[in-house]
Amino acid sequence: MSAFERLRLLIAYDGRPFAGWQSQAGKNGIQDHIERALQIVSGVFIRVHGSGRTDAGVHALGQVAHADVPRGLRQPATWLAALNANLPAEIRILRATRARASFHARFSATGKRYLYRIWNSPVLPPLQLRRAWHVPRPLNVAAMRLAAALLTGRHDFAAFAANRGKPESDTIRTLRALSLAARGPLLTLRFEGDGFLYKMVRLLTGTLVRIGEGKADEAHIRALLAAGGARKSHFVAPAEGLYLDRVHY
Amino acid sequence: MSAFERLRLLIAYDGRPFAGWQSQAGKNGIQDHIERALQIVSGVFIRVHGSGRTDAGVHALGQVAHADVPRGLRQPATWLAALNANLPAEIRILRATRARASFHARFSATGKRYLYRIWNSPVLPPLQLRRAWHVPRPLNVAAMRLAAALLTGRHDFAAFAANRGKPESDTIRTLRALSLAARGPLLTLRFEGDGFLYKMVRLLTGTLVRIGEGKADEAHIRALLAAGGARKSHFVAPAEGLYLDRVHY
Repeated sequence: MSAFERLRLLIAYDGRPFAGWQSQAGKNGIQDHIERALQIVSGVFIRVHGSGRTDAGVHALGQVAHADVPRGLRQPATWLAALNANLPAEIRILRATRARASFHARFSATGKRYLYRIWNSPVLPPLQLRRAWHVPRPLNVAAMRLAAALLTGRHDFAAFAANRGKPESDTIRTLRALSLAARGPLLTLRFEGDGFLYKMVRLLTGTLVRIGEGKADEAHIRALLAAGGARKSHFVAPAEGLYLDRVHY
Repeated sequence: MSAFERLRLLIAYDGRPFAGWQSQAGKNGIQDHIERALQIVSGVFIRVHGSGRTDAGVHALGQVAHADVPRGLRQPATWLAALNANLPAEIRILRATRARASFHARFSATGKRYLYRIWNSPVLPPLQLRRAWHVPRPLNVAAMRLAAALLTGRHDFAAFAANRGKPESDTIRTLRALSLAARGPLLTLRFEGDGFLYKMVRLLTGTLVRIGEGKADEAHIRALLAAGGARKSHFVAPAEGLYLDRVHY
């Protein structure tokens, strides 16, 4: 029997104060903070594996990670309380459970859901600051919905991928759903898919907003989807409107 | 004809970065920031009169103020844009309109609405931080609603007033409505009244939470209301859950 047991963590964070999910030289990655808390609580260094990275400023309502902790040291509920006591209040463990050794936060994931929030009115209310993208001019929501329908399904999303070092080899993904809910000036895009390329949600959002502004049309989206990466979209929506909502297993 | 015209401002702010509404020696009152923006825009010092103070950390969704600005200098919409361009993003003018000279943000007000947000679950999600009072143990919402009904109406609220220098002479107020909405772990108290004593909403909220925790009962409220200030409530809910929602005229 291994001296370790696998802990599965459900994590929420405000992206503002941190340098993104991934461990950083400056040790201000969210992963760094959780690894530091694990070390304080256990006395040993424990690596945390997230379902995937989020960029600086991106929020999470339901990030998932796993970590192998010394077996029998604490009950999951006690790990939760002890970790939260040693984390900044802008990072919270919402749930801690035991997982099988075969569970892997990244490789076991079957899909993800992201939300993107847009505040579409001339003035951004202070409590929406850094929690939504402020787009002051009126957007054509109907046109955005038609474009969203075009993007839904299985496509080569190479046009909507930013390079992270080298280009990704497989850029085909299935966007199971892309909906746009409007509640007064708050527009919420919901992306549900089997996987997302680097900056894909922000690039798709940027293009949808261009369409809402009347600066691009459906033909533009068709051309981007058909070009297999030979054409790229460069309109990246800001990080502050993006939320990792849920990881599916 | 006066060289000035009266401007009525609808203002929202995140209470966190500021020392409350009122002008402060350190010039970090919300009023200070608006007066500074008015001075930048007009070249002269212009006094701002709010509907009332809010303490440090208290948020506003709809504070109202007036100011006498040089007549004909700008249209209200241009004042709005110019002031917002010179204010921190945590303070926004939502609306600017011309008002009659008899309009006074404080003395013309006929009532106010406050919201108080409580997050009632063991872990406070990071995006609720400093925007709700975190009460980790389960509250008895039914008991709180019964107590809220007792508090509604015309009463001597002296027991629910903090001293600001000298005690207030007239402590009779009408609480037109006090409702409690529960949506998952988020409890929202809504206070609607003709006027509020200093810290009254936070003192009422503190007492309601004591009741929800089973540490006080309805008899306690009846005794406080009947004592005419001879007994005082000392349970002040924190500023960060309080929102000035609307001022009625």
